[in-house]
Amino acid sequence: MPKHMGKRTIALESCPSFLSFAATAGKKEGEGPIRDSFDIINEDSFFGEESWEKAESAMSSLTIARALEKGGINGGSVDLIFAGDLQSQCTASTFAIRGYQIPFFGVYGACSTMAESLALAALSIEGGYARHAMAATSSHFCSAEREFRFPLEYGGQRTPTSQWTVTGAGAAVLCSEGKPPYVTAVTPGIIVDAGIKDANNMGAAMAPAAYETISTHLADMGRSPDYYDLILTGDLGKIGSEILRDFFDSDGMPLSNHNDCGLMIYNLSTQDVHAGGSGCGCSASVLCGHILPKMVRGEINRILFCATGALLSPTTTLQGESIPCICCAVAIENKKPGLR
Amino acid sequence: MPKHMGKRTIALESCPSFLSFAATAGKKEGEGPIRDSFDIINEDSFFGEESWEKAESAMSSLTIARALEKGGINGGSVDLIFAGDLQSQCTASTFAIRGYQIPFFGVYGACSTMAESLALAALSIEGGYARHAMAATSSHFCSAEREFRFPLEYGGQRTPTSQWTVTGAGAAVLCSEGKPPYVTAVTPGIIVDAGIKDANNMGAAMAPAAYETISTHLADMGRSPDYYDLILTGDLGKIGSEILRDFFDSDGMPLSNHNDCGLMIYNLSTQDVHAGGSGCGCSASVLCGHILPKMVRGEINRILFCATGALLSPTTTLQGESIPCICCAVAIENKKPGLR
Repeated sequence: MPKHMGKRTIALESCPSFLSFAATAGKKEGEGPIRDSFDIINEDSFFGEESWEKAESAMSSLTIARALEKGGINGGSVDLIFAGDLQSQCTASTFAIRGYQIPFFGVYGACSTMAESLALAALSIEGGYARHAMAATSSHFCSAEREFRFPLEYGGQRTPTSQWTVTGAGAAVLCSEGKPPYVTAVTPGIIVDAGIKDANNMGAAMAPAAYETISTHLADMGRSPDYYDLILTGDLGKIGSEILRDFFDSDGMPLSNHNDCGLMIYNLSTQDVHAGGSGCGCSASVLCGHILPKMVRGEINRILFCATGALLSPTTTLQGESIPCICCAVAIENKKPGLR
Repeated sequence: MPKHMGKRTIALESCPSFLSFAATAGKKEGEGPIRDSFDIINEDSFFGEESWEKAESAMSSLTIARALEKGGINGGSVDLIFAGDLQSQCTASTFAIRGYQIPFFGVYGACSTMAESLALAALSIEGGYARHAMAATSSHFCSAEREFRFPLEYGGQRTPTSQWTVTGAGAAVLCSEGKPPYVTAVTPGIIVDAGIKDANNMGAAMAPAAYETISTHLADMGRSPDYYDLILTGDLGKIGSEILRDFFDSDGMPLSNHNDCGLMIYNLSTQDVHAGGSGCGCSASVLCGHILPKMVRGEINRILFCATGALLSPTTTLQGESIPCICCAVAIENKKPGLR
């Protein structure tokens, strides 16, 4: 049985294993610093489809297929898939998954979706109600621009604090028994709204949620940040990451081993992405393409994957609302706690 | 440990109990056949707010508060809340929940959201990683019209097959030990797309998904429909319900004990709702306001709650796509299987 630790962390006992994972990226991401990490790089932003929304679904479906293939299984062996994305009514995911006969729970955690779906997939296996469970998510620069800001054709100016939505997708298959890495703990997020109203500064809006969840996780588990080789936030970007580190500095507990997927996927000085990458696909593709393979190779052994989400919509912004945010943390380790 | 039955049903062992539940309804719902069932009926469609979207959040928050109050607990005792709604990026729920410090997993299952969130809440308790878990959802006629169709001011005509989105919300608190009724089994849905493209005929689009999940559940559990006192679909309305019953008639297994929340909440002949009620709040408010109290009173003892969702968006409809649908089934019984 999983164990409740402290305020709200769930320490897993069986610790599901990653059977496989896959990451897809678009052209721009395929030109960035971690270009060699992705399973698939597609130069065609349309992924062979006729709209950005359909392109994102095609990319997501491709990524799920690749993860299944790498795991040597087909959809029929998967008991549950947890997936979601940024499009209204999460249609990138539902249209991607309708071709599979996999029992589906749709989730929405904005850019925290990969951590949320991974957490729920891990908990399903831990709880004994799935043998294989998948987590999948995606984002697409062009569909996100249309969804949240302006159609590309409008040619809107971007503010210096804005981030660039990653065209990318990640999918992972978890199973009950297997090789490392393992999911060892989950700290679900609470909604934190620090009153930020600038939808072009998501990093600042999300940093307090990241701080709240990471510090709760560390306190719950009685750990200091250096327990982990890497504390990996999803898409705080440059500004959000600085704010997060400031918070921990004020606590006298510097986050020396922190990095952010939004800072890793692009070269900020040459790729014109302003404050860095963002989107569900940012943390998903960096985790599944870059970080998990590093863990498999033993280059890093303990990470805390903390994807953050800004739970706003274009409507709430227009109605003058501030931005509620969330961060879900998933501990992934090469040794199960019992084996330490 | 829960037990896998047949294709994909999860039979629960500990069978979480309903600690409490609450339902809120708007004015029109408060004039319908089950008006005496709701905990709160609000005559003000704005729920004291200045937009329909904020009104829906206020309604959802009110309903969560009432469910907590009826259970004699506060948010601090709830380990997890699963919630979602129909607004883009599920903001009705996130803005409702940001006032609570409850660990949150956002879900999106369109109008199937109450079954999805109830299933996940039940599984969290069953798996040992929550002591109290909540499920909550809402819909609001006016925010849904703006989201999916036209702003009310436009005064659009409605087709005869269209349904009326319920202004209503439901919330339930599950706990590990307690009085009946209990959640005894969960059958998650797969995505079924029968090729229907008419977004004004959701009943027809969703009926095949309901048929697929209900027949899978019955086969998995080795039950005939009359095992249940009530097989309750969420919002198939008049047309979808007829199609569903036709499917079962063709199988020689008539669904004599079927009813639909969308047919129960309004008087179809006098309330001008065309094919019946719909929306996440339809099944949520009927379940929490009308059906669970009947179970507590022992008037019915076994139900299969099967909320259906149309996983489309306004964009997918404009892009000529058909409507992928899903149905999640949750068995709720006054006796745990082991005690039969």
